Amino acid sequence: MTMTDLETSMATIITVFQKYSEREGDKHKLKKSELKDLLHDELPDLMAHVKDQSALDNLMEGLDTDGDAECDFQEFMTFIAMVTVCCHVFFEHEDE
Amino acid sequence: MTMTDLETSMATIITVFQKYSEREGDKHKLKKSELKDLLHDELPDLMAHVKDQSALDNLMEGLDTDGDAECDFQEFMTFIAMVTVCCHVFFEHEDE
Repeated sequence: MTMTDLETSMATIITVFQKYSEREGDKHKLKKSELKDLLHDELPDLMAHVKDQSALDNLMEGLDTDGDAECDFQEFMTFIAMVTVCCHVFFEHEDE
Repeated sequence: MTMTDLETSMATIITVFQKYSEREGDKHKLKKSELKDLLHDELPDLMAHVKDQSALDNLMEGLDTDGDAECDFQEFMTFIAMVTVCCHVFFEHEDE
């Protein structure tokens, strides 16, 4: 069974999350070091704009909506959705 | 410049949205027929579970949070995020 590009993209987001979340501790959540590695390795262009450590700390705190100091998949997906919406706004204005 | 798998996935979601949104009317929004085509062509497995037209109508109404009868990228991305979170829940329990 072949997957469409959209289905493949959704599966890739899940796979990338799991690649980092299963490294240590709770296999289904990203601890701070795992999230940091994921952002640096998988979103290098975005992270190039994060100049200082406090901005990164704020981002991580913002992601952790249930306050358990770990990032579950729903929190991660919300973040990816926000970043993608921001990217879309950029593309939208590019062709005007 | 090479993109990571995660960056490629985010770009693909934007590209798929645009492929349908630019067909008719507002180029940056999906009208009902465009959304319907997108769901049928790009998420066939999901749509196989949508048995009747009223369920599809409800889905479309639910997506359109600002009530303009069209689906903008933010509304679309929120939907994709929800579906992906549901898929992740499924995978999470698969290995237990």
